[in-house]
Amino acid sequence: MSASFHAVRGSFFDLLDDPWKYPGREALAARFVPDGLLIIAEGKIVDFGSFTEVSNRHSQVPVTHLPGRLILPGFIDGHIHFPQTRVLGAYGHQLLDWLQNWIIPEEMRYADRTYAQEAARHFFDDLLAGGVTTCQAFTTSSPVSTEEFFAEAARRGMRTIAGLTGIDRHAPAEYCISPQDFYRETKRLIATYHKQGRHLYAITPRFAVGCTHEMMAVCTQLKREHPDCHINTHISENPTEVRLAQAEYPDCHDYTAVYEKYGLLGPRFTAGHGVWLSNSEFRRFAQTGAAICFCPLSNLFLGSGLFRLGRATDPEQRVRLAIGSDIGGGNAFTPIRVLEEAYKVGMCNNTMLDGSVNACEHDAAEAERNKLNAYRGFYLATLGGAHALYLDDKLGNFSIGKEADFVALDWLAGQHAMAWRQSQVCGPEGPATVDQAASLLFGVMACGDDRNVAETWVNGRRAYQKLPTI
Amino acid sequence: MSASFHAVRGSFFDLLDDPWKYPGREALAARFVPDGLLIIAEGKIVDFGSFTEVSNRHSQVPVTHLPGRLILPGFIDGHIHFPQTRVLGAYGHQLLDWLQNWIIPEEMRYADRTYAQEAARHFFDDLLAGGVTTCQAFTTSSPVSTEEFFAEAARRGMRTIAGLTGIDRHAPAEYCISPQDFYRETKRLIATYHKQGRHLYAITPRFAVGCTHEMMAVCTQLKREHPDCHINTHISENPTEVRLAQAEYPDCHDYTAVYEKYGLLGPRFTAGHGVWLSNSEFRRFAQTGAAICFCPLSNLFLGSGLFRLGRATDPEQRVRLAIGSDIGGGNAFTPIRVLEEAYKVGMCNNTMLDGSVNACEHDAAEAERNKLNAYRGFYLATLGGAHALYLDDKLGNFSIGKEADFVALDWLAGQHAMAWRQSQVCGPEGPATVDQAASLLFGVMACGDDRNVAETWVNGRRAYQKLPTI
Repeated sequence: MSASFHAVRGSFFDLLDDPWKYPGREALAARFVPDGLLIIAEGKIVDFGSFTEVSNRHSQVPVTHLPGRLILPGFIDGHIHFPQTRVLGAYGHQLLDWLQNWIIPEEMRYADRTYAQEAARHFFDDLLAGGVTTCQAFTTSSPVSTEEFFAEAARRGMRTIAGLTGIDRHAPAEYCISPQDFYRETKRLIATYHKQGRHLYAITPRFAVGCTHEMMAVCTQLKREHPDCHINTHISENPTEVRLAQAEYPDCHDYTAVYEKYGLLGPRFTAGHGVWLSNSEFRRFAQTGAAICFCPLSNLFLGSGLFRLGRATDPEQRVRLAIGSDIGGGNAFTPIRVLEEAYKVGMCNNTMLDGSVNACEHDAAEAERNKLNAYRGFYLATLGGAHALYLDDKLGNFSIGKEADFVALDWLAGQHAMAWRQSQVCGPEGPATVDQAASLLFGVMACGDDRNVAETWVNGRRAYQKLPTI
Repeated sequence: MSASFHAVRGSFFDLLDDPWKYPGREALAARFVPDGLLIIAEGKIVDFGSFTEVSNRHSQVPVTHLPGRLILPGFIDGHIHFPQTRVLGAYGHQLLDWLQNWIIPEEMRYADRTYAQEAARHFFDDLLAGGVTTCQAFTTSSPVSTEEFFAEAARRGMRTIAGLTGIDRHAPAEYCISPQDFYRETKRLIATYHKQGRHLYAITPRFAVGCTHEMMAVCTQLKREHPDCHINTHISENPTEVRLAQAEYPDCHDYTAVYEKYGLLGPRFTAGHGVWLSNSEFRRFAQTGAAICFCPLSNLFLGSGLFRLGRATDPEQRVRLAIGSDIGGGNAFTPIRVLEEAYKVGMCNNTMLDGSVNACEHDAAEAERNKLNAYRGFYLATLGGAHALYLDDKLGNFSIGKEADFVALDWLAGQHAMAWRQSQVCGPEGPATVDQAASLLFGVMACGDDRNVAETWVNGRRAYQKLPTI
């Protein structure tokens, strides 16, 4: 037995499959080990199962016991803006005005290395306090922000995806980067960071509206030269933005067609939002293996609209789906709050599809797929997000060989009403069944927040622990 | 100088008028006293103003200093269900199924006095931890729950409105109450509680769908016999419910017409939700002085829909408007979270009214009225709520003679990202101007939660203080 082995004991909950495959029987996609043992070596899961069984195989391994917690795979935030850490919850504008008034001035500050370093410390502290162990992030058009992002991620040992964020129109000159500079700097940053440690690189055209033909063509070239890099961008967040995309790309019949035209849509392509995607566009995402990142905190905060969750999860054309905070359009860092708002968006869709408002829009199956129970919700935050980002070989659950990123949730923490609410499900001894575990987890996503994140472990080590109250 | 005088020093923010009267200049409706002094005697405000000025007049009064806080009038929750304290965040159903599956079984437990007493302790603890000092509450059809509600409110010294909650159809027999029993018990409870101490009584037909003609007629009679009582009910929360109301009252051309038919619509009438009200119905609420309670947490959680905030605040037909958590349809007790969701609903409406989705629905003025800045938001939670409930002679701001209910907000508390976010507005010395105060308060409503409630004072005494972290 290697001296580097260590173990965590507790109640584990994870997903092994897509719960949307099992309507009404979502527990079939889940695994619950009420008294489990996770064996870790060099940041990876080397054994996992019931305590009784696994402890026999690893009798000398030091054990950290986390009673009164539900241990889940670390949360994955598929769409977040590092340089918007400080401007979350900015008042009063829809997407395009909000960008001009609040976001661009703040993002320009990240060309200053000292500021970017301070921000990176805040950013990763905020993520870990929310239970996020992996994110796919936008930076700015200044390489400094990308460098400091990866530097801080490396200090935390976190698996992240990010990339220099290209925009060359509809913004002040000093905020833009030329396609030539973007190409050169992206090449340099890929060489420095991609697949170094836990870093992954995303070629990142900010959004088609903000990118000229030349910028998009450069992205095509970069993807051809670096096919194993991710592509990270935005799509169809806001109706005015959709119209602007149509105006800027008159030869493309819809927004998705722009990314198709430049050969970007496909595996490891993620577009945030997709609120206003047509049925045809959802189908092309599904068929090509491209992913959408659903950002309900932001979609509500900026008034962008209600993402059609039940459409994206149609089994005939199931889209790879992650969730994202979209900080600073989103107003909270923790995926727990993202799931709360995702639930609400789904329930609003459910009403609009049940025929009570408009009989000809009745679709019982799509209405049902909009209901986000805990299995579906935490799938999106863990394995589903990993699947969307083509990281499900490395992340997303407690399967042996995966990386040891996880969160320990305190299901009783949060607002004052939480403990009595959760006492309906089980006593302080904790859940005995997968249904009880899921009921507690629904309580966390419905009524909880970052206070429910008791501990966050990254690469097999405790990276965050919540301060107790006196 | 009476020995019973005492004082609170700090930064005070309140509203003196309706900020919707001053589009773009909402600060005109607000008052900010960066270093103020509030003099309290026997639970009432006897003097208020700048510390320099007021302390001269009251030099011997003991002072509690609350530095680093913004002191606001206590929050008013206009629509909350006491017997749903434990079932907040219940999974998976729209209004009517949610009532049948989750709410009715839980509410029936409140016929047991011991359970109702335990619940009342939780309920008022939860309210105070969220900054609520006054609520208008539903109870159940068992008088026990109303009695225990008022008993616990009296122990806390809180001004509340509540009443036996009548329903006599569309529910199990043991959950219903006959119109005769409802009349008799309501009369008895009014005699016992109405205007005793800080109690006020609301004649409470649960909702027209759940009330027969006989029950509604009894409410007409009760209101005639007790014209100074409130009326508290629901309206147009969910489209299926609206259709059911039309089916049950075929002689009424819309839902509001039911309450008109029975002579209830008018001053001191409050209906929760109003999501699906027509323009004509909004107009009749405005004309009669009836109030709507906007419950966005619940409207999103149950998927009920997006309340038309900008329509309700039309200056041509301004409706009296409160906000409510609608626990347990709502998923958080604090009005801070209610305002967050109210902001989001307003922004979604803003997008739908800006012409970008449907040009013929373009209405720039209504779109603008949907934007909930801090002045508008905290008006709804304080003076606006008091105005809606006809309590603005007693509550809602720091005017001399009003009751001394207030909250001390810590604008830096909450999620990990909060402090750096708020540092954009001002340093730790706190706000110097009304705009800075409002910017911090917008940060609280956009990114905060009950953690921002540092202290809650009721009737001139500290009733809640947040536990510090180590």
